[in-house]
Amino acid sequence: MTTQPRPVLTAFDWVPDFARGLVRDLRVRWALEEIGRPYRAELLSARNPRPEEYLSRQPFDQVPAFTDGDLQIFETGAILLYLGEHDERLLPAEPHARWQAISWLFAALNSVEPYIGRVVNYDIFQADKEWAPAAREAALELCEQKLKRVDDALAGKDWLAGQFSIADIVMATVLNNLRHTDLVAEYPALAAYHARAKERPAHKRALEAQFADFVEDEIA
Amino acid sequence: MTTQPRPVLTAFDWVPDFARGLVRDLRVRWALEEIGRPYRAELLSARNPRPEEYLSRQPFDQVPAFTDGDLQIFETGAILLYLGEHDERLLPAEPHARWQAISWLFAALNSVEPYIGRVVNYDIFQADKEWAPAAREAALELCEQKLKRVDDALAGKDWLAGQFSIADIVMATVLNNLRHTDLVAEYPALAAYHARAKERPAHKRALEAQFADFVEDEIA
Repeated sequence: MTTQPRPVLTAFDWVPDFARGLVRDLRVRWALEEIGRPYRAELLSARNPRPEEYLSRQPFDQVPAFTDGDLQIFETGAILLYLGEHDERLLPAEPHARWQAISWLFAALNSVEPYIGRVVNYDIFQADKEWAPAAREAALELCEQKLKRVDDALAGKDWLAGQFSIADIVMATVLNNLRHTDLVAEYPALAAYHARAKERPAHKRALEAQFADFVEDEIA
Repeated sequence: MTTQPRPVLTAFDWVPDFARGLVRDLRVRWALEEIGRPYRAELLSARNPRPEEYLSRQPFDQVPAFTDGDLQIFETGAILLYLGEHDERLLPAEPHARWQAISWLFAALNSVEPYIGRVVNYDIFQADKEWAPAAREAALELCEQKLKRVDDALAGKDWLAGQFSIADIVMATVLNNLRHTDLVAEYPALAAYHARAKERPAHKRALEAQFADFVEDEIA
């Protein structure tokens, strides 16, 4: 019996409070926890610049980068798709369900996250700018429209593509970015879906593992 | 000999000038032109609301939705991945090249397009707001940082993942959104890459087909 080598993902050894629980290695940890696959986290210093060679693994200098054997992958969408191709608990093999899940995976990353990102940008990163409230108001309309579309699509469904899949891991973690607001609660099906996702034991284990990797904050 | 049925994609029968050449059905047309696969465009009215049932095909009420036989897919990333899985001219089968291409496909949609989208939003959709210039300046820094990362990654390479792939179709069409600016020209490798992509005969045919489907503008 051979032991399958552990995949490696990069994560930060510290992030400020507002980012705790939101760093994207959570998505990969969650997927690995769903299938019970042990992994190793390679911790990067959040305060020091990464070594130049890191850009060859993650061209945008972000986390996570992912290594499985001699295969290197970046972008959480790609990493989760890779894991899903090897395990039906993450991505159904039946073509109709599979392409629905993949459609929703891309939707979470390209049709929802960018609009949530604008609201977060005004609320957190540009909060001190005098123009931030007006810009936020303009962005909010589009963000709410996207949330409503997902809410409508969830009518009568527990998960975006029938069974739980990588699309739900990404959509739920995308919604996490609005935790400083009451926006998700405005949409009952969406709010119930978000709660359902976060209650999964694999999500809880992933979140605990991410937090356990943060070093004690001796500098602050 | 059986004839492979034509896939169907939705597109608009008219869009305003600023959007011509930027509507996302171009990505799917381009991929289909690269492999010489005939398709049918189902034209939606850009001025009238879509029928309610369209949301079951495209939950965000956008174009394109894609149908191949009895399979329905939405989101250009998912549609291009589907086409790539069936043709190595769009997505290499060799695992290292395949996952590099898929990583870059997601990067174009999630690490580049959202930041370009913010600049476009201020320049075009919010141009009349007094706060737009200040908001644009804040967004520009992040957008330029992303463009520089792609420019760096392209050093010595013709295409993002070695051979031409669906990642390049998406990245090139994402960059098209900056055509009202000189931003891409600031990055020599990126600008050369963008020109190289647009010069492909399949891109030109796709663009012509998209424009040919716009009805004469009798109303304006």
